[in-house]
Amino acid sequence: MNIQGELLIGSRGVRGSQATSRGINPASGELLEPAFGSASQADLDQACALARDAFDAYREAPLEVRAAFLEKIGDNIMALGDALIERCVAESGLPRARIEGERGRTVSQLRLFAGVVRAGDFLGVRIDPAQPERKPLPRSDLRMRYIPLGPVAVFGASNFPLAFSVAGGDTASALAAGCPVVAKAHPAHPGTSELVGRAVQQAVRDCGLPEGVFSLLFDSGLSISQALVADPRIKAVGFTGSRAGGTALMKIAADRAEPIPVYAEMSSINPVLLFPHALAARAEETGKAFVSSLVLGAGQFCTNPGLVLALDGPDLGRFIAAAAQALAEMPASTMLTPGIHRAYEAGVAHIMAHTAVTTEARGKAGGLHQCQAALFTTTADAFLRHPELQDEVFGAASLVVRCPDMATLRGIIEAMEGQLTAALHIEPADYDAARSLLPVLERRMGRILVNGFGTGVEVGHAMVHGGPYPATADGRSTSVGSLAIDRFLRPVSYQDLPDALLPDALKTENPLHLNRRLDGALQFVR
Amino acid sequence: MNIQGELLIGSRGVRGSQATSRGINPASGELLEPAFGSASQADLDQACALARDAFDAYREAPLEVRAAFLEKIGDNIMALGDALIERCVAESGLPRARIEGERGRTVSQLRLFAGVVRAGDFLGVRIDPAQPERKPLPRSDLRMRYIPLGPVAVFGASNFPLAFSVAGGDTASALAAGCPVVAKAHPAHPGTSELVGRAVQQAVRDCGLPEGVFSLLFDSGLSISQALVADPRIKAVGFTGSRAGGTALMKIAADRAEPIPVYAEMSSINPVLLFPHALAARAEETGKAFVSSLVLGAGQFCTNPGLVLALDGPDLGRFIAAAAQALAEMPASTMLTPGIHRAYEAGVAHIMAHTAVTTEARGKAGGLHQCQAALFTTTADAFLRHPELQDEVFGAASLVVRCPDMATLRGIIEAMEGQLTAALHIEPADYDAARSLLPVLERRMGRILVNGFGTGVEVGHAMVHGGPYPATADGRSTSVGSLAIDRFLRPVSYQDLPDALLPDALKTENPLHLNRRLDGALQFVR
Repeated sequence: MNIQGELLIGSRGVRGSQATSRGINPASGELLEPAFGSASQADLDQACALARDAFDAYREAPLEVRAAFLEKIGDNIMALGDALIERCVAESGLPRARIEGERGRTVSQLRLFAGVVRAGDFLGVRIDPAQPERKPLPRSDLRMRYIPLGPVAVFGASNFPLAFSVAGGDTASALAAGCPVVAKAHPAHPGTSELVGRAVQQAVRDCGLPEGVFSLLFDSGLSISQALVADPRIKAVGFTGSRAGGTALMKIAADRAEPIPVYAEMSSINPVLLFPHALAARAEETGKAFVSSLVLGAGQFCTNPGLVLALDGPDLGRFIAAAAQALAEMPASTMLTPGIHRAYEAGVAHIMAHTAVTTEARGKAGGLHQCQAALFTTTADAFLRHPELQDEVFGAASLVVRCPDMATLRGIIEAMEGQLTAALHIEPADYDAARSLLPVLERRMGRILVNGFGTGVEVGHAMVHGGPYPATADGRSTSVGSLAIDRFLRPVSYQDLPDALLPDALKTENPLHLNRRLDGALQFVR
Repeated sequence: MNIQGELLIGSRGVRGSQATSRGINPASGELLEPAFGSASQADLDQACALARDAFDAYREAPLEVRAAFLEKIGDNIMALGDALIERCVAESGLPRARIEGERGRTVSQLRLFAGVVRAGDFLGVRIDPAQPERKPLPRSDLRMRYIPLGPVAVFGASNFPLAFSVAGGDTASALAAGCPVVAKAHPAHPGTSELVGRAVQQAVRDCGLPEGVFSLLFDSGLSISQALVADPRIKAVGFTGSRAGGTALMKIAADRAEPIPVYAEMSSINPVLLFPHALAARAEETGKAFVSSLVLGAGQFCTNPGLVLALDGPDLGRFIAAAAQALAEMPASTMLTPGIHRAYEAGVAHIMAHTAVTTEARGKAGGLHQCQAALFTTTADAFLRHPELQDEVFGAASLVVRCPDMATLRGIIEAMEGQLTAALHIEPADYDAARSLLPVLERRMGRILVNGFGTGVEVGHAMVHGGPYPATADGRSTSVGSLAIDRFLRPVSYQDLPDALLPDALKTENPLHLNRRLDGALQFVR
């Protein structure tokens, strides 16, 4: 399949008529062909009109059709073969093995949601049967199911060109919920986006679904993104990116005549807490493992460990020394875009120049657009006095905060903004101290983990990749894992409808064999 | 228990130091003693500080303690006896039987949530066990549960001084979720609010819970409401009231440093759809039943049928004639407040003066602050040309729209804003026509009902009392029924935590005997 530099509007490929841009290979600085024309307002209008028109038919397609569609997208992505891998490596600067792994994750994510759709529990069926004899008033028959919100705008992320992009977690969960998707490609990987977009477009065709179930727009600027979130036919937004970008979309969504939910995954420094007995037992080992997590993917993960909190003392000294030594050996690696590299360099320079911060180590210097890792230390007092030290530096930089005692460490967590993850390094002798911190952590984190780092985000049923603002726009949600489908649903009640008019999910005979609640009690049929 | 005109700040009663106001008996215009002083910013600050301090202990109290607390609130409300009923009748102008019924509903709502808490399904436990042998990477142990958001601000509604007020659905569901509540009393029923607030305060004491679990503030103006929603310790808002009030709170919440969810139930005209065969079969009967629903509680229900859509013709003429006749016989009844009565009169006068509207009937004229019902008709064309005819007139006024054909009727629904309910009056011969409208209705309504009216809102498991904006601020939710608890929860994941550190809900041995999902599949244990 050739990359043609086209928008995908329903079943068509369309040359964007507005300003053009090209992908850049960050490893070489080379501009990649072809040029991609930006979408016009008319293109956007068509995509949204098709999505609106497709909605009722798509959402009532049989669950099996919807599940097979998700699997077909995965098959079509795999069928792109090496062309996809090579283009994605060229556009992202990420190693081939990482991109292959990410493709596997993307496809298994689509399959996970196919399973969720088939099981049907997400429909949340509840039935409160009529009680015609009830006194003083008879009770009506009342049945509830979740329905999808409507067309969803999905913004591809720079740092996962497959797994959080055109057919990534937001798209997979929105399609699984029954929502058409209008995707906006990230300009850092337009060719990858078109290839994946065509795989989705082909799956729509393969499965005989209405063409408006999926469209893909390109824009080298911001106007199409803003217009997409403002469009009255769009009913929810999925986004992974910067805090500035996410909060701008939140504001547009809140100011609409009909405000809509925005699920923006934005900013997190993911504190690592080193407890005293764990530090005493394995300071060096933990220091090395920490650095491995820090430099993974040039630090370009939402869950990158950007902050370490620990009690000051000789054991922390051993941790810092081991981490500094490991870091100094780390080769630089290419960042996703020239802009991300520039922002990283500026962020690191700003911290290095900070009077309250000591630079403990730098990784090896690298070539074009390469991330030179950095490890800093500061005191708890300075960290609390300088809120700018909490700002995320996107890349392989981390700050160790030397705390005089546990009360200060707790105070730092209390003062922190919402985060995606917190990692606790503990031994059994630390359990009491850890237990007393858990309530504080639960109030600020989406995921709490022990003796590891947050950088591995398993795509499963119990995963929460979310967290209180500003980690995400809406801390009631996760953007990874099967629970992500709930973001795109709302409940509807049906009262005294004859079976002939009820949707299959609610019919008395339960033709879809769904688990459901009868007067509140779970009826387990599968 | 005497009414003392006091704020309740945790375990204390406090005389509000700011501007005073009194309740008014709308039936007599009489000012009711005592005066209530408004809360100061310092009072608000104390209530929020106590709520924050109570949160961790309250949310981890055993489920049985939380359930017993909800039941105790109900018992304490019943123990207020006639004093509560009499005060509530005096402050609301509502009949005694209605207030007694509403008390029953309020108490059974608290008991429903006690049952929800005991069952524990709201915790949404999911466990994905570790797979240490998995290739290429081992899988961590991952467990998820929902935790409460934090302290919730609840705004009492004017039209349900018990069921949607200090210990109403918002408070019951927030407390059930594990959230402390800072309630703001509606100024229309301060004495009722204090009595009920003391019942809650006493239940906190009876159950040995931290005093900050509940506080109650009074304010004769807007400043405390605004400051409460802006307070960083408040993590969600429950509100029932006007669109202007709800959207003002939404704006404050969105502009906070940490935006928070607002669950505002605001504005709905609840279309009634009369299908041709139903109209042919029972126009008169339906007209009379419609009027009974319209004038119930002086039309002061969120689900009041403010709009009727039907095909024009002789059968609709019979419906209108029967409805007009029934309405003309309807005695006026006292409205909740002088202000609500004034707004109703102004709204009706505005419609009566509208050139495109015919006044078909008025109810009997009444005395002081009494609602004189009103029935209007207009054409579909005029309704579509004059969007102001969609504005809710709070009270017993309704507008019948004569539609030339089903396509026009469908177009009107497509052009409507989000609504709480739609009521379809149908016979089997109407099913095909009804079926084709259902997708349009589902996109705009929270509840669809057949051959009835929306004014009865059952407190059960399958109820949705919500709907797309502006029916509610957040169409993903319901404010009535057991599902309302979900509004105040967010998911948290725990990865590789030793059992010793896991909350009981997630421990391997399942000490709470909870239903849970294992690798996504429901494990049904109760």
